[in-house]
This record gives sequence, structure tokens and C-alpha cells, in this order.
Amino acid sequence: MNHRRLNGLREFLPRSRADALLVSGLANIRYLTGFTGSSALLLVSDHDAVLFTDRRYEVQAAQEVQGAAVTVARGPLLTALIGSLKRRCLRRLGFERGRASYELYEALRSRLEGCRLRPVAGTVEQLRAIKDAGEIEFIRRAVELNSAVFEKCLGRIRAGRTEADLASAIDHTMRLMGGEKPAFETIVAAGPRSALPHARPSLNLLRKNEFILVDQGVILRGYSSDMTRTMALGDPGRKGRRVYQAVLEAQMAAISQVRPGVTAEQVDRQARKVFRKHGLEKAFVHSTGHGVGLEIHEAPRLGRREKTKLEAGMVVTIEPGAYLEGFGGVRIEDMVLVTERGCEVLTPTPKDLRVL
Amino acid sequence: MNHRRLNGLREFLPRSRADALLVSGLANIRYLTGFTGSSALLLVSDHDAVLFTDRRYEVQAAQEVQGAAVTVARGPLLTALIGSLKRRCLRRLGFERGRASYELYEALRSRLEGCRLRPVAGTVEQLRAIKDAGEIEFIRRAVELNSAVFEKCLGRIRAGRTEADLASAIDHTMRLMGGEKPAFETIVAAGPRSALPHARPSLNLLRKNEFILVDQGVILRGYSSDMTRTMALGDPGRKGRRVYQAVLEAQMAAISQVRPGVTAEQVDRQARKVFRKHGLEKAFVHSTGHGVGLEIHEAPRLGRREKTKLEAGMVVTIEPGAYLEGFGGVRIEDMVLVTERGCEVLTPTPKDLRVL
Repeated sequence: MNHRRLNGLREFLPRSRADALLVSGLANIRYLTGFTGSSALLLVSDHDAVLFTDRRYEVQAAQEVQGAAVTVARGPLLTALIGSLKRRCLRRLGFERGRASYELYEALRSRLEGCRLRPVAGTVEQLRAIKDAGEIEFIRRAVELNSAVFEKCLGRIRAGRTEADLASAIDHTMRLMGGEKPAFETIVAAGPRSALPHARPSLNLLRKNEFILVDQGVILRGYSSDMTRTMALGDPGRKGRRVYQAVLEAQMAAISQVRPGVTAEQVDRQARKVFRKHGLEKAFVHSTGHGVGLEIHEAPRLGRREKTKLEAGMVVTIEPGAYLEGFGGVRIEDMVLVTERGCEVLTPTPKDLRVL
Repeated sequence: MNHRRLNGLREFLPRSRADALLVSGLANIRYLTGFTGSSALLLVSDHDAVLFTDRRYEVQAAQEVQGAAVTVARGPLLTALIGSLKRRCLRRLGFERGRASYELYEALRSRLEGCRLRPVAGTVEQLRAIKDAGEIEFIRRAVELNSAVFEKCLGRIRAGRTEADLASAIDHTMRLMGGEKPAFETIVAAGPRSALPHARPSLNLLRKNEFILVDQGVILRGYSSDMTRTMALGDPGRKGRRVYQAVLEAQMAAISQVRPGVTAEQVDRQARKVFRKHGLEKAFVHSTGHGVGLEIHEAPRLGRREKTKLEAGMVVTIEPGAYLEGFGGVRIEDMVLVTERGCEVLTPTPKDLRVL
């Protein structure tokens, strides 16, 4: 499997005018080699691949890495890498434009004389955007587990509890039910706080007749899931119901656009069109979705001016929301797999407004 | 408070030969402005400071940011930033060498004609290394909470449970007892797995007569704590006891060196000296410690070739360990505050070998 992925990457080398590519993004390294440690650099040439890590990960790297040789650095990784690069007499080295720090670039530039550095944009990310069958299976299970956790925690949504309480119960349930850990900081936002798209769970109490927005994801075997549901604790009022229906309509309209060949911005535009109809276009302050896989946010982004064409095997979120300061917010988010003929909504959790 | 910090940073500007500094590290931005969102850039000149964020954080930024003006970008942050930089006609812009991505650097370089870019190393990190009284108080509480959580979970260490079970219970207890979240992925490693310094909790069972290594930290009001204890479930055997005593001796010896004026490498060397005496120098595969604050790993690093002199107000971990493949590992870690005359061990949890 890793050989196939590494070979996929090698196809980019001539196009990038590089003899080898230095991969520094940890999720990219995991994708290509299976290594899950937090300290690594990976050098991929057309005939080999070498992973550099430090002594803390010596045993783990031997267990996990496939498709690449492992070099355990005795000092800084960068020193080991540069020594190896010098011995190879590389003339053109690609590096990850969006993942390399300026510091890494500067060290390569100053210490590798006679080697041209080529910034390369999103190559591994492009490979990762199209999931293979094994990955889709992992993601499917992560999505199903996430929904099961959500159902299990629904009973805990009661007036008088804090947002933080509920978020903690969700995270704990994820682990009890076999998940690795939350894919991101679980969001529980009640009442006016639901108007903050990235609210942190606070000691704010859940109250009657307000919205509760829950955005949660669990990681299973390295793959993330992501789902948002907004519920009402008692009656959310006419305005609340109207906003909810508008968001749901926007979400379904966006999903209806998802199929191979459609651009990411088309899907986003569809959601915006529905909001405009309801006079809510200014209340939708983020993009419609993003890819999910080894990272919670990955390619493609479904937003304005995104020309990427959807392809079968992509897995994206569709998550429009409307946020009204002082009143509250609604977001509805599913994970969707792009199939040969259209798409499959992976998230099994119902989307009608639940009044608890 | 933020004004004092921003002014501290401004003192670096002339030395960096820059008219303004672009801060891109999120923890640095939080330190300087109070903003806790995940999307921000901060421009600090000698007379003002502007934080750029996106619309998702409009409300939150208005609530949190102090000492800086807020600009909410309608499109990409970088576009808003570059527009603002152009209007300022800056001639020399500093940027964070270790925090800026190559991509950010490249965008600045190509779009800011006539402006010299100056990579600046670790300025905000240097300020952050010395904690003020308020920060020390936050850290103290985080450390005490972490130890209380540990004591509460000790009873759950029983043969037949999995590492993952125990780790999950620890994380949940952190939240139940008022912590924000774990400061890092809690490590529970039993038996031979304790020889992996960064083991992930697995479905491996806790067994009699083996070591259990627990490395946990909790975040409270943004500040992290970090502690490792290694316990024995039943008799760890003569070899186990010998290794434990050697690690404890190394840890105490390193702590005895901590005071203002001593270099980071001196503290590290002291731990290594003890390991050498016990023939365990090769079993100690990482450095002796690191600073802790808004990030779990920050300046100073206590390792080989680290010339930083300790100063009063620094908070560091002291965490030597010995790892024997196939047998197991022992690490003992406390958090230590450098005081005017020496140091104070903040971690209240006992360090004698606990046999459970």
C-alpha cells in the first residue's frame, strides 16, 4: 500500500523538476509510510525513501514504517538529513511549500551548496484527497462511531448542565466506545454562544428555549469524522425554526450538487444561493466544507473561488451555518463521499430539528 | 498586561533591524493579545498593533483582544495583511523564523516590493520563557490540578485493564475536576511498552509485576502542566527497582542544579552523569526537560549543547528516563520553577516507587 502511495508521489518528481522530495508534514509522512510519531522528515527519491526520526521513536519506527528505510538521528534530525543529502549530491530538491517552516528552508538553502530548492505545492495532499477503499472503510467506521456517540449523549442534554459538562461527556464516550480521541476540540455552544462558529465549551448553562450546537468528531485508526447538529431545548421560537429550516435547505441543496466534475465553488455557491433567498447570506460566515481524512481539515476546501473539481473517492463535509449575533446560530454538517455517479451521505444521524 | 508584553517585544525591533514584526505563531499571538482563536496574524510596530482574523472569529476577537486593533478579513488573512502592509510603506518587516511557513515568507517576498524581510528568531518565545506572577499562579494551579487528577485515578490502576481505559479515565477526570483539556495525548504505557518514551495508550493490558508509566498534563486557563510517574503493579523485580532508583537519583541530581545563571546543558549533564554511573547512559534517549507555559513544549530546552542560562521565572520540566527495549522504561517528571535563589518543585506528587 505504501509503495503504491510512494510511487504516486514519485510521478510528481519530474513535473516538479526535482530529483527528490523532502516531506515534512507529519500527516503526509504517516500517509506515505505509516509512521505516527511526532518527529520525522521523509526523503523520497525516484528509487528510494528514507525516514529520519530521533531516538525516542527508534522502536516505534521499526514497528510502523513500511516502504521506507529508517535513519535514527543521534542529534538534530536536520543535521542527519543534510548529511544524507550531501552524500547523495542531489542537484534539485523539492520541499513542501505549505508544510516546511521558513527555518527548514533557510537551513537547506544555507547548508546545501549547489542544490536547487524547489517549493512544491500540495502534492501529497492531492494524493490524499482521493481516498482508497481501505481509507473509505476507516472513515465510514469513524463516522458511524461518531454518530453512535452522539446518540448515546443526547440524553445528557438537559437544562442546567454546562456546555463543558456535555463536551466532556461526549469526549469520554468516544473513548469508552473505542475511539482513539476527539478529532478536534468538541464544540458545545448554547443560546447566544451558538452564534460563535468556533465557540469553546464554557461554564455557560444550557437553558430552555435555546439552541444547542454540537460539533464533534472522533478519530478511529487515524481517520477523522466530523458532524454538527443543532438542537432546541424546548421551543426555539419562530425565528429559530425559520433559521433552522433555511440552514437545512442550504445543506441539502449543497449536497445535491456533489458529484464528480463539479467544482468545489459550485457546491459552496449552491448553499449561498439558498441563504440569499432567506435573507441570511451575511449570516453564513465560513465556507461550505472541507476534505476529511488523516487530518480534520484537508483538501479540497469547498469555498469561494475554489476551482478544484470533485472526484470519486473524495470525502468532504457539507456544513453551512447561519450565525446571528446575540440570538444564536445553526449549523448542520454531514460527511459525504463522492461516488462515481454522485455522492453518498456517510453520516446516518437524522437532520430534522430535534426538540429535546 | 498585554501592553507590557507588546512593549517588551517592541524593544527587539531595533535589534532586529525591523520597523515592525509579523507574529504568526498562535501561542505567541495569544500571549501578546489574549486572542485564543485558530486563525490570526499579528502585526506589531513601534506605535501600534493590529490583529488580523477571519469572520468566524469576529465576535470572539472583539471580546478577547486587548492591546491591539482588530481587522476582520473578508477574504484570506494574508490578502488583508498585505494590503495593510502596502499602505504602511514599511521598508523592513521582521517575521518569525521558526513559526512562519515557507508559504507565508514566499507570499510576503513576492508581493511586498521594496520591503526587506528580516527573519527573527524566538523573540516572543524569549519573553514567554520568563513567566510573570500571574502566569506562575496559573501554572501552579494547573500543576496542582494535574496531581489531584493523578491521585484520583490511581485506584483505577489494576491488572486486566487496558492502557487506553486508564488514559481515558484520566482525561475525563481532568475535565470533571475543572480542567480545560489534556495538554497532550496522555501516555499510559505498561510493561515492555513503557520502553517507548512516546507510547500511545493501546489495548495492551496492565499486568502484574510490570511497570506502568503515566505521563499526563492538564490545561487550565490556557496554561499547561506536565508530570510523569512510573509505578509498579506488584513486584518490578531487582532490575526494575535498580532502574527506578537510578532514574530517581538522576532526576533529583538534575533538580539540584536548577538555579539562575546555570546553563540548560549543565542541568542535562547532571542527569547524564548519574546514568553513566549506573551504566544506563545509553538508555536515556531524550533531553532532560523543557519549558512549559501556553505551550507544552517551549523555551528553554534542557538538553545537550543548550547554552541558555536559567533565569528566575522560568518554569521547566525535569524528566530523565531510562528505556530498556523488551524490558520496560522508567521516567520521573516534575515541573520546577526557577526562583531568585534556586528553584521550587511545583509538583506535589511523591516520587518514591509506588507498588500498587
